[in-house]
Amino acid sequence: MLVYSLRTRKTVRRSAPTASERFADFLPLKKYDPSLSLSVGGTPLLRLGNVIDQFGLPEVFAKNETANPTASFKDRGTVIAVQKALELGIKKIGTISTGNMAGSTAAYAAKAGLPCLVFVKEDTPQDKILAAAVYGAMIIKVQGDYGGLFRKSFEIGRRRGIAFMNSVDPFRIEGYKVTSYEIFEQLGAPAFRAKTPVMVLVPVSAAGHLIGLIRGFRDLRDLGLISKLPVLIGVQASGCAPISRAFRRGSDQVERFPNPHTIAHAISNPTPPGGELALRLLREFGGFMMDVSEPEILRAHALMASREGIFCDPASATPLAAVLKLKRRRHILLGARAVLIVTGSGLKAMEAILDPSRLDIRTASLETLDKAL
Amino acid sequence: MLVYSLRTRKTVRRSAPTASERFADFLPLKKYDPSLSLSVGGTPLLRLGNVIDQFGLPEVFAKNETANPTASFKDRGTVIAVQKALELGIKKIGTISTGNMAGSTAAYAAKAGLPCLVFVKEDTPQDKILAAAVYGAMIIKVQGDYGGLFRKSFEIGRRRGIAFMNSVDPFRIEGYKVTSYEIFEQLGAPAFRAKTPVMVLVPVSAAGHLIGLIRGFRDLRDLGLISKLPVLIGVQASGCAPISRAFRRGSDQVERFPNPHTIAHAISNPTPPGGELALRLLREFGGFMMDVSEPEILRAHALMASREGIFCDPASATPLAAVLKLKRRRHILLGARAVLIVTGSGLKAMEAILDPSRLDIRTASLETLDKAL
Repeated sequence: MLVYSLRTRKTVRRSAPTASERFADFLPLKKYDPSLSLSVGGTPLLRLGNVIDQFGLPEVFAKNETANPTASFKDRGTVIAVQKALELGIKKIGTISTGNMAGSTAAYAAKAGLPCLVFVKEDTPQDKILAAAVYGAMIIKVQGDYGGLFRKSFEIGRRRGIAFMNSVDPFRIEGYKVTSYEIFEQLGAPAFRAKTPVMVLVPVSAAGHLIGLIRGFRDLRDLGLISKLPVLIGVQASGCAPISRAFRRGSDQVERFPNPHTIAHAISNPTPPGGELALRLLREFGGFMMDVSEPEILRAHALMASREGIFCDPASATPLAAVLKLKRRRHILLGARAVLIVTGSGLKAMEAILDPSRLDIRTASLETLDKAL
Repeated sequence: MLVYSLRTRKTVRRSAPTASERFADFLPLKKYDPSLSLSVGGTPLLRLGNVIDQFGLPEVFAKNETANPTASFKDRGTVIAVQKALELGIKKIGTISTGNMAGSTAAYAAKAGLPCLVFVKEDTPQDKILAAAVYGAMIIKVQGDYGGLFRKSFEIGRRRGIAFMNSVDPFRIEGYKVTSYEIFEQLGAPAFRAKTPVMVLVPVSAAGHLIGLIRGFRDLRDLGLISKLPVLIGVQASGCAPISRAFRRGSDQVERFPNPHTIAHAISNPTPPGGELALRLLREFGGFMMDVSEPEILRAHALMASREGIFCDPASATPLAAVLKLKRRRHILLGARAVLIVTGSGLKAMEAILDPSRLDIRTASLETLDKAL
């Protein structure tokens, strides 16, 4: 079955096996190659029934992006950026990362047979470096300013013929659109025609992910599959909230966030390159930004694991923290459906389990086992 | 569409969304509840094109079980064992584990709202303990013999009303059958009717996984969907190969393996409780056991990551090591299809990256970056 839109002159191939293939006309590739995809996407939408019951929430779902090949949403962008590099005949790729993007880019480079260069901050934990280096990438730990490194990477890339696919790479962002298509398919069209809007909450760092999600829903509107966009809510940690702060001030400029400090390392970006575009898109489509405190993040992180069986990183817990905050402030509409994007795995952020003494870990011998219980 | 078999008196619901639901008649539950499944299964079958080209292999696919909710194949068994416990009105569950099973059981217990007790060996790495405790389970580190603990757990379970779902729990093993159904669906029926048989290679520890896979294919044969089983090949590390050793000797008894030592911790089990049943089933259906050395495991582990973009644990690399060994010995049939079961994630076995000096990790400042390249 086909959906063809005169307005977009694009076709949705309803019978194709993955959303990337169903919506391939909306991807910036001549041809999407599933054999290089490591089977990205198709991630589950899980109803958070226990949390809903405990807090009296409306319908809340987690879009579990940790089910992606390298356990984070980054894979959706990487698969498109790498295939675009192949299409353009580029022979080497690179990225800058503090964690998830390094592993993702290195894995897809390995599958595509492209050499990969990864710049990481000097203080990146060794485990994260190893989890990228294992794919055969060259890793360089760089001392100095991250913003400076961002600019420098493009200069090096131009001179040496390396395509740097950083956080707001335009092809990477196009890949994130597929998440919106999947949410539409998984919730079903009626959810998007209901009186109360669907809310989509996403952790925000550089803002590439948020921008991609908005564009994905805009594609669906242009196709006539939905009449208006869901309410997009970008969530930051209060300890590093440059875009949320600008949104609150009504500003369209994002200023460097001084002294960032949060356990949600994956979204600790004081100078988000996509911040201003994100602000413009949120205002255009009726979304907003908010931020949540460290205790709120830690509580939501524990709830995700202990009530719903989802062990995510702290950044991925910010959408649940935001929903609970909206509930306390009576900002959640009855009958609304909230989709929380769970962006990364707890296995890559073990430091989030700050205080093992709060967990129940005991020691016994075979003989004293009964007593220990 | 339905497939009904007079012989099995069971129905396959072809239009159901997941293999667990399509083959629900073959699961030991009154009703399979997807809302407690965390979206288990449906894992990708990835063609290992780069490795095939490099070594001149026939078709080789990885069944990537690390895409499961807690990043290992254990989830397939846990989801069934936990639902069976609910069906039987059991109020507490438990398990013994050195890693993957702890996290899996704790996660499903959290989702089902059941208290969970996990016994781990005293020397289990702290990260693995935390990755289970985070789900709210009670963890007890136990000094003493693992085999003794296995027996003791059932005694404690009976006395205290705790269902211990250990490695060869019968309901757990039934869950592993679904992997076979998925492999059948993903390769397509013609592959199983071809002249050369399909080979399925799986890492073997307690042997529950292998037993489940054989039973799954037996179900498909009983349904008439395949005429004979694929060749099942159980793979162990030569440093802990009690079942492989018994198979080679032609024995139907498995003896304790002395001084086990292997980097493949997930399959380092010197007294596998399912070993003897596995031997009998392998002989009945024409499968076999083999083992691979530490250098072979490490090489296959590096190949999986650097050539195929799959970062698995060392145990999961043993099937590729075995395929390469069969190839060297000219035991691989032309036209055969090999399916390697990738059982666990590299993120939970960072110690497998034994020698970071073999990886390409450098340091530079913004100024010296060009020189470092």
